[in-house]
Amino acid sequence: MGTENKVIITAALTGAVTPKDVNEHIPLTPAEIAADAYACWKSGAAVVHLHMRDDHGLGTMDAAKFAETIRLIRAYEDCDVVINCTTSGDNRASDDERMKHVSTLSGVEMASYDAGSFNWMPGGVFINSPQFLAKLGDVLTSRGIKPEIEIFDSGMLGIADYFVRQGKLTQPGHFQFCLGVLGGMAATVENLLYLKSKIPEGSTWSAFGIGKDHLPILYGALALGGNVRVGLEDNVYFSKGVKATNVQLVERAAEAIRLFGKAPATPAEAREILSIKPLRR
Amino acid sequence: MGTENKVIITAALTGAVTPKDVNEHIPLTPAEIAADAYACWKSGAAVVHLHMRDDHGLGTMDAAKFAETIRLIRAYEDCDVVINCTTSGDNRASDDERMKHVSTLSGVEMASYDAGSFNWMPGGVFINSPQFLAKLGDVLTSRGIKPEIEIFDSGMLGIADYFVRQGKLTQPGHFQFCLGVLGGMAATVENLLYLKSKIPEGSTWSAFGIGKDHLPILYGALALGGNVRVGLEDNVYFSKGVKATNVQLVERAAEAIRLFGKAPATPAEAREILSIKPLRR
Amino acid sequence: MGTENKVIITAALTGAVTPKDVNEHIPLTPAEIAADAYACWKSGAAVVHLHMRDDHGLGTMDAAKFAETIRLIRAYEDCDVVINCTTSGDNRASDDERMKHVSTLSGVEMASYDAGSFNWMPGGVFINSPQFLAKLGDVLTSRGIKPEIEIFDSGMLGIADYFVRQGKLTQPGHFQFCLGVLGGMAATVENLLYLKSKIPEGSTWSAFGIGKDHLPILYGALALGGNVRVGLEDNVYFSKGVKATNVQLVERAAEAIRLFGKAPATPAEAREILSIKPLRR
Amino acid sequence: MGTENKVIITAALTGAVTPKDVNEHIPLTPAEIAADAYACWKSGAAVVHLHMRDDHGLGTMDAAKFAETIRLIRAYEDCDVVINCTTSGDNRASDDERMKHVSTLSGVEMASYDAGSFNWMPGGVFINSPQFLAKLGDVLTSRGIKPEIEIFDSGMLGIADYFVRQGKLTQPGHFQFCLGVLGGMAATVENLLYLKSKIPEGSTWSAFGIGKDHLPILYGALALGGNVRVGLEDNVYFSKGVKATNVQLVERAAEAIRLFGKAPATPAEAREILSIKPLRR
Ligand SMILES: [Zn+2]
Ligand SMILES: [Zn+2]
Ligand SMILES: [Zn+2]
Ligand SMILES: [Zn+2]
Repeated sequence: MGTENKVIITAALTGAVTPKDVNEHIPLTPAEIAADAYACWKSGAAVVHLHMRDDHGLGTMDAAKFAETIRLIRAYEDCDVVINCTTSGDNRASDDERMKHVSTLSGVEMASYDAGSFNWMPGGVFINSPQFLAKLGDVLTSRGIKPEIEIFDSGMLGIADYFVRQGKLTQPGHFQFCLGVLGGMAATVENLLYLKSKIPEGSTWSAFGIGKDHLPILYGALALGGNVRVGLEDNVYFSKGVKATNVQLVERAAEAIRLFGKAPATPAEAREILSIKPLRR
Repeated sequence: MGTENKVIITAALTGAVTPKDVNEHIPLTPAEIAADAYACWKSGAAVVHLHMRDDHGLGTMDAAKFAETIRLIRAYEDCDVVINCTTSGDNRASDDERMKHVSTLSGVEMASYDAGSFNWMPGGVFINSPQFLAKLGDVLTSRGIKPEIEIFDSGMLGIADYFVRQGKLTQPGHFQFCLGVLGGMAATVENLLYLKSKIPEGSTWSAFGIGKDHLPILYGALALGGNVRVGLEDNVYFSKGVKATNVQLVERAAEAIRLFGKAPATPAEAREILSIKPLRR
Repeated sequence: MGTENKVIITAALTGAVTPKDVNEHIPLTPAEIAADAYACWKSGAAVVHLHMRDDHGLGTMDAAKFAETIRLIRAYEDCDVVINCTTSGDNRASDDERMKHVSTLSGVEMASYDAGSFNWMPGGVFINSPQFLAKLGDVLTSRGIKPEIEIFDSGMLGIADYFVRQGKLTQPGHFQFCLGVLGGMAATVENLLYLKSKIPEGSTWSAFGIGKDHLPILYGALALGGNVRVGLEDNVYFSKGVKATNVQLVERAAEAIRLFGKAPATPAEAREILSIKPLRR
Repeated sequence: MGTENKVIITAALTGAVTPKDVNEHIPLTPAEIAADAYACWKSGAAVVHLHMRDDHGLGTMDAAKFAETIRLIRAYEDCDVVINCTTSGDNRASDDERMKHVSTLSGVEMASYDAGSFNWMPGGVFINSPQFLAKLGDVLTSRGIKPEIEIFDSGMLGIADYFVRQGKLTQPGHFQFCLGVLGGMAATVENLLYLKSKIPEGSTWSAFGIGKDHLPILYGALALGGNVRVGLEDNVYFSKGVKATNVQLVERAAEAIRLFGKAPATPAEAREILSIKPLRR
């Protein structure tokens, strides 16, 4: 049976910034994150996107924490969820610190690749310099880690294309359209359609809108034949004033997919769709 | 409580052409249509869009049949569904025959207004001449029947605008984007977005795609903040190879609306949204 | 030398409807039309699009008049302009009358193929039924006449595609985007871009806007890499209140092309671009 | 007489980076720049956009050089060209250095306001942090200098909007769409249309494409009713292999405007269009 009617749900469990007092369901420790990853997988997520937090709850690129989380997730013997690690989990980290886990750890199957810089308003500049992207592309390619090319604005499509031409990224690429950050592209169906129409033929894609825009982008992505991302990294409410859990957000996405006449992809199907090699423990 | 989170489901129960041997659930007689209207209302439809069929199952503009169907629907005392009648139910009918029911009957609250002509491929030309549209606009306006301005292609937007300027249509208008007929606009999210972006501010709108495109357009319409139409007139399958009932299609739309964080509009809410006066029996 | 920097100017000299008292420069008789065709060719037009008028100045499909005009144009021995005849020159003509000249005459190299029907507001319905289009496609294909597929609205793209699949039209097609008729697509750069993005790869295209919109569409078509059409059929003014001649409109288009860094295509280059066989007298 | 048919030509004479050996016509010293500004004004430019170069030909924010250039331009008594100074002329300069001239000099009427950061590929990150933009907005507003809001990508529209809401920018804004830098929005008519459709009603706008894309964007901007920018900062060739002068580029733009039926705005008209107060010497 084919994968053409399968939709990959990525659960972005933690993120780099939202503190626990905004939503107490955000998992922060490796143990919490692994448990939530397992529960989200049970609910239909094929991929978990991981950020680590330090003891003060701040984003950290600490490779040991990534390692511990991966170990804990893989300890669930029935769970083959795809493990996707951020490379942008701490804006104080150096370029090398941002790549340490993907350079050294086993078990990282995907990693985010933020294809450019922009003003993440109103705080500051989210910097992913050409030099960083060249190096990160090399690391991911050489280690067989699938880049999740995160696109926050139109020009990043050209940057991704440039690094394909430079041999730093391989094709077909997998794009994550990250919509609704002030300073990046607004979370509209028009923008989703715009981005989707510009990626190379044969690419795969997923999308999410942050905050209140997550549902329009979820529905728009399904309408356009894409994959979806949900999770407390992007949106902390289930409905107006009601705090979400990651599992609830995954369940809702799974239900929207089934109602659409498709099915959530299993991790094995997601690996096939994304050209990631089968899981070996 | 407001109507901003309410979505109008219109159930297009019968249509003018699909024969019963394609899908035995298509209601054909006034009694069948009224029963299905009632069941769809119970499932969340706020509006029923009616076509009549003659004794051979062919589309007919027979005003007596419309009258009988309206009588039977209104006989359900608990059901206040909005009654919307086609004006294009028989391509052999003269312009006057197409307007007889809306010119004479009580109880018609809305009527379709197909805002132009085009090749309905491969059969022939679906003709709604400027002269017909001028007359129909006058009839609907004078009788207080809300036009459902059906848009099959881009140029029809200009025609609707023209008849507003001519005083034949009043504002705000309600638009139904009818996508996926070969010869009209294709059923894509891009086209839906295009049409939605072109209607006058303050207008209301709904959309549907025919056949296999009904789900992408349903999700796209919700993502874009519109209302939706479903029913066997537009699509006879629930999923690949599985014949639908009108009720199933309404139920699925209602569920997609709830999952989206909104609620199906009641007929009373639909009347408020569409500026239709409250039902008086 | 290649044709990639060549732009085909089509001169639409006469049209079917505008009377001489609106602009006395509209050529009406075969002699006037031939003389204007020659002058426009001298100014840079590669193609002339022809309509005939009867003795009252009304559009006519009279094959004898087409024949006489072709004879007079070809009598200019230095002039190899491509001859393109309308098939929609008289809305009272039957389908067969509309095809008589292209079915019987020599020297018709291109013919318009209006790929659908729509309300040409406010007058009436411009009818090009599926049956007419099937027959016309056969005639043009069998006689080696290049169809100029005129697109007035989005749905006509699907109709053209349908007749390609039916074997009535061959590929690559040549499309003329006719923008700004009320009832068809409005004359905006957005619409031009929309249509251009939807035609099959390998197709050629041209565009015009009617009336005051001819200059924005001319510039937009050049910006988008297309060919252009000008002439009194589409627009009778050179600037506000100043009546144009066909030659002036061609000269301005030629100058806009040169300023853009390209050159008007010669008729021989136009034939190469459009896959029309070389002229044989 | 009104300004509705007037198009502002901005001449971007020098830029921050292209060395003289790429095109010997690039003016580098205050004397060369002033002379070119005068000649471009004679040819139809209403605004000159100025960058300074140091003695090695590198971009510099040296306020004394800006002052000297302004003095030399204003020494031409017949020339009232609008003076627009960059705030991004040296990527080694600090935020304060980038604002020194606009904070202190007289005679600066407009200044560029690059509304965000992005990877200027492949060199590095073009940084305009939220903090810089807040300060620069204050300086320009308090000194009555008109910001030319430069938009390199979609997200910058949201940033500009944010600073309007923060009271750092006043409305109506004037936008310069800068298309074709790798890492920013590509130079396509689609992107131009996209940006143009998103700015607040009442705004004014201009556009340019860099390199070979300058002509499509010039024509596209005219087709869409915008203003235009030309000059050696953006493009060093007049046609393939032929080096341009600033005057030639301005002349061609002026001719394209006249052919389009409009006229180049005078500096006085440009000040009226842009709400800049009349020049006082
Ligand atoms: Zn993340
Ligand atoms: Zn109907
Ligand atoms: Zn014609
Ligand atoms: Zn500059």
